[in-house]
Amino acid sequence: MKHIPGSFIREILKVTTQPEVISFAGGLPSPLSFPAEDIREAAISVLTEDCQNVLQYTVTEGYLPLREYLAKRYTEKGMTVTADEILITNGSQQGLDLCGKIFLNEKDKVLLEGPSYLGAIQAFSAYQPEFLMVKLQEDGVDTTELEELLWEHDIKLFYGIPNFQNPTGISYSDKKRKEVAELLKQRNTIFIEDDPYGEIRFSGEPLPPVKKYLPEQTILLGSFSKIIAPGLRMGWIVAKKEFIEKLTIVKQAADLHSNFLSQRIIHRLLMESDMEWHIEKICTMYKRQKDAMIKMIQTYFPEEITYTNPEGGMFIWLTLPDYMDAYQLLEEAVLLKIAFVPGQTFFVNKEGRNTIRLNFSNTQEAEMEEGIKRLGKLFYKRMCNP
Amino acid sequence: MKHIPGSFIREILKVTTQPEVISFAGGLPSPLSFPAEDIREAAISVLTEDCQNVLQYTVTEGYLPLREYLAKRYTEKGMTVTADEILITNGSQQGLDLCGKIFLNEKDKVLLEGPSYLGAIQAFSAYQPEFLMVKLQEDGVDTTELEELLWEHDIKLFYGIPNFQNPTGISYSDKKRKEVAELLKQRNTIFIEDDPYGEIRFSGEPLPPVKKYLPEQTILLGSFSKIIAPGLRMGWIVAKKEFIEKLTIVKQAADLHSNFLSQRIIHRLLMESDMEWHIEKICTMYKRQKDAMIKMIQTYFPEEITYTNPEGGMFIWLTLPDYMDAYQLLEEAVLLKIAFVPGQTFFVNKEGRNTIRLNFSNTQEAEMEEGIKRLGKLFYKRMCNP
Repeated sequence: MKHIPGSFIREILKVTTQPEVISFAGGLPSPLSFPAEDIREAAISVLTEDCQNVLQYTVTEGYLPLREYLAKRYTEKGMTVTADEILITNGSQQGLDLCGKIFLNEKDKVLLEGPSYLGAIQAFSAYQPEFLMVKLQEDGVDTTELEELLWEHDIKLFYGIPNFQNPTGISYSDKKRKEVAELLKQRNTIFIEDDPYGEIRFSGEPLPPVKKYLPEQTILLGSFSKIIAPGLRMGWIVAKKEFIEKLTIVKQAADLHSNFLSQRIIHRLLMESDMEWHIEKICTMYKRQKDAMIKMIQTYFPEEITYTNPEGGMFIWLTLPDYMDAYQLLEEAVLLKIAFVPGQTFFVNKEGRNTIRLNFSNTQEAEMEEGIKRLGKLFYKRMCNP
Repeated sequence: MKHIPGSFIREILKVTTQPEVISFAGGLPSPLSFPAEDIREAAISVLTEDCQNVLQYTVTEGYLPLREYLAKRYTEKGMTVTADEILITNGSQQGLDLCGKIFLNEKDKVLLEGPSYLGAIQAFSAYQPEFLMVKLQEDGVDTTELEELLWEHDIKLFYGIPNFQNPTGISYSDKKRKEVAELLKQRNTIFIEDDPYGEIRFSGEPLPPVKKYLPEQTILLGSFSKIIAPGLRMGWIVAKKEFIEKLTIVKQAADLHSNFLSQRIIHRLLMESDMEWHIEKICTMYKRQKDAMIKMIQTYFPEEITYTNPEGGMFIWLTLPDYMDAYQLLEEAVLLKIAFVPGQTFFVNKEGRNTIRLNFSNTQEAEMEEGIKRLGKLFYKRMCNP
């Protein structure tokens, strides 16, 4: 406890439950993306055909056919993975906590992208490490700075999100992926590769995970939250067997195993539905929403405000003029029934005062336009009274 | 990781998946006790009526109507509890982990009943405390020894299972509950009161939780695993608001929130079904199984072997003659396709070499008789060749 920073995400989830608020704050997938009918069918099937097993305790590692499915899917995409290199977790968030538990001792150094995912900062904080941050550039982490930091400090692990990063939407180029792998290999540093958005690519070419270039040292975290549904809290860890065995022991101590009904529902769904089609549908929907938001930003925001234009995922990152403070703006925005996350939240070093994360996945276009318009007015007002 | 003891429970769950083994080893509820039909109906209802919410992210605290139901249930039973004194967790196992995280620093002293629940030892071990044990007597913990230990050592928390303990089946008398509360109050020691079996009482009078006598210092853990189904991994923590707030922050860092579909299924089930009738049915079933096992023990085991005769729960505890070693016996038992847990597993100090935990909830009578008969032969054989 003693060491976990303020629970901003939790507070956001509370604000967004008020229906009149237009929220760009959360990291919620669109409920329209949930395969609700198929999930109901799958639930009925597994509860009808095998309820005594579905409702009973099961093994910590997770449902073997589900792990086999995931292994096969990675292998088809060019990275050989076996079922015993996979552990099922309660979303990838639990993966972060378990990694903290097996790798981190007090005062160990953890390197993060600057900015980084707040949930990871919270999960690792419980184990009281020291955090460092390395700059993000348009094509991924600044590898020159990464090299310096790795040689200056004894860094235990580096945590990154190479695909459509939360909060910036930035992706690593293939060149950067290879460079990161090479640098981490030289220093024998563990890479926690968080990949909850990897499947949600709506433009550009798919790129292999860093794990492909650094198989022994990478812990890859995956999630069904964005491609199926987050309420089922289901994700997985891919790592070499030796790591999976340790992670399984701490997972057992933490909650015995993940919800078995949901594991079985998801497995059934994957067997019976056309997942590729479903994912394509989500990508089409999110691309439309992202394109719409970019256009609205160009229309309603002052030119001085720059933004990322992601190839996937759920977030756009705004950089405001230096003199603007996003926390101050949020106070005014909330009065206008608009919510966003001030970018400073995602830094460990007070940087990013003039940055903002916008989520585009969970707002429909009419509402989105109203929200962006109001935000634009707020920015113009602030420019007149800096 | 580094500090969690061997994962015996996990290995047991693996052995018991072999269908030809007669297992008294696991802590599995009977699959016949699952309200499978009602769970299916509840799943269909919530996924039909409210699927967009059921499948979405939700708040860390857990579904408010479910917490209100639990608060009301405690209040009806004579202990005033409000919804904001409850946090929903992934089974009570996660409650143990979260308590470890907020209360324990390295080398803090944790007092356990001797023997104690292995899963608790594993959960707390991750935080590297020092363990002490206090003897269990027929009517609960030895309060004379408890007093000595509390004054000799600076004990951070005491972990106990006052109802139908795992592994012994022992329950605290009301007198002992009051004495424990009084002693802990004097020393300002936190009590982790684990109560997964409390509802499964099949004889004797219900007794209030120790929390009733020590409301400020007790963290009470509850579970749906034994009264509904363990595969849903759903439990809860009851504690004063100040503790719940801290536990919620660490829960959020650990996995954002518990599986929402299962929270909604369980809530719907509780609203639509007659839970008292369902629990009575389970109690009747387990009483029959416990009575049968006691009779078989009397018939097939040597008189030198003593046993507990629990008023509820799922376990009977055997004490063998001093010269017998339960681990050695297990090796032979496994060859005869019988499994049990050697009692030494539940001690932190190598005690209990000649003790055994038997589970009676998950074996039907014909199979149970065959298993107890084989075990009896093994004990007689060992008595002839000590």
